[in-house]
Amino acid sequence: MKKAVVLLSGGIDSSTALAIAKAEGYELHALSFDYHQRHRRELESAKMVASAFGVVKLLTVQFDLREIGGSALTADIEVPKTMGSRRQSAADGRPCTDKIPVTYVPARNTIFLSFALSWAEVLGAEDIFIGANAVDYSGYPDCRPAYLKAFQDMANLATKASVEGKERFMIRAPLLFMTKAEIIKRGIELGVDYALTWSCYDPQPNGKSCGGCDSCLFRQTGFREAGMKDPLA
Amino acid sequence: MKKAVVLLSGGIDSSTALAIAKAEGYELHALSFDYHQRHRRELESAKMVASAFGVVKLLTVQFDLREIGGSALTADIEVPKTMGSRRQSAADGRPCTDKIPVTYVPARNTIFLSFALSWAEVLGAEDIFIGANAVDYSGYPDCRPAYLKAFQDMANLATKASVEGKERFMIRAPLLFMTKAEIIKRGIELGVDYALTWSCYDPQPNGKSCGGCDSCLFRQTGFREAGMKDPLA
Repeated sequence: MKKAVVLLSGGIDSSTALAIAKAEGYELHALSFDYHQRHRRELESAKMVASAFGVVKLLTVQFDLREIGGSALTADIEVPKTMGSRRQSAADGRPCTDKIPVTYVPARNTIFLSFALSWAEVLGAEDIFIGANAVDYSGYPDCRPAYLKAFQDMANLATKASVEGKERFMIRAPLLFMTKAEIIKRGIELGVDYALTWSCYDPQPNGKSCGGCDSCLFRQTGFREAGMKDPLA
Repeated sequence: MKKAVVLLSGGIDSSTALAIAKAEGYELHALSFDYHQRHRRELESAKMVASAFGVVKLLTVQFDLREIGGSALTADIEVPKTMGSRRQSAADGRPCTDKIPVTYVPARNTIFLSFALSWAEVLGAEDIFIGANAVDYSGYPDCRPAYLKAFQDMANLATKASVEGKERFMIRAPLLFMTKAEIIKRGIELGVDYALTWSCYDPQPNGKSCGGCDSCLFRQTGFREAGMKDPLA
């Protein structure tokens, strides 16, 4: 049984990516990060989703990106409550020219994928799944196809693969060109219970989603366009 | 004053890289990692070296690579006490065909450089210094020129640099093609006190170096070839 390492934040995209890896027959190794993010609440969702899909192991790596800061998710910067960037499609090759919103966490996906690469090499897993999306997204540079390809190229030079000709790593981003509505529909087909997931960047004191951050808005749009009710709403 | 982020383990190479960055006039931001390595002792050296060179800040990021394992430095695997791989030169383009020793930590430099990239982006630093060496080294894949170039390419797609046309990151590896003896001579010229550094992978219960691991042997060879006495010996 082939193994996969799946980045699992507990949101809609990563949970759907996990379901897709499961449907493809992989033995699932899920990887979450407690980086002292504002929305640490998502880690509870990651645990519930991992459990629902019977992952062999959920590893939660801990470090403190607040020491580096530079983002509304890891520093004392307010999370904007308007859509930070327009719906953009990298699929058609247009450059992403909007200003990147302050919820961007510098090099976050590179850090996440680096740990995934390390674990994959130890496990003998060739495939690393990430729920990156370049359609209904905030314009983060580290969600785009060219970046993911560059990471894969680097990964295969970074590791034993390049010397002993063993594993060849592949960064799998099955949601890359899907709309949020398409992602949700696909997840439902594959048995994802979105009631278990968490999207909000700025959980409120009452434990609810803020309803106004980029991530909440993409979630709302996704369910609306899918013609479905968000079980969390 | 231009800023640099310098990976600083506290060994000969990274301490010399720090000295080179200082000599080039950079404002120094040093980055160390407590990854629960067998030779955590090196972190004390990193602090002393950072202090000696007047770094603006030494940031020590903590995470536990023992949860991933796969290396004699992060798992219960014995550190070999014979030279694990022959002296190899990537400089002449020959492929590195020897087996990689068990002291290799999967994707370690990728993880380290990813945090450096994150910090550099927040600081507005374009240059990231790493003491990687592809001459007197253990054959680790993530010390070779092609890897470092691939990381740099990826870094510039991962970050705002690629969208807003701001920083262009450069991975600076000034020791890449030097012998250990050349590194030591250069460091002495630049004022490095190698008595402050630490190389051994397997510190003994009496607090001394083991004298037999790859890292100790490269250190011994370096001082011998430089015609100098190791102040730690």
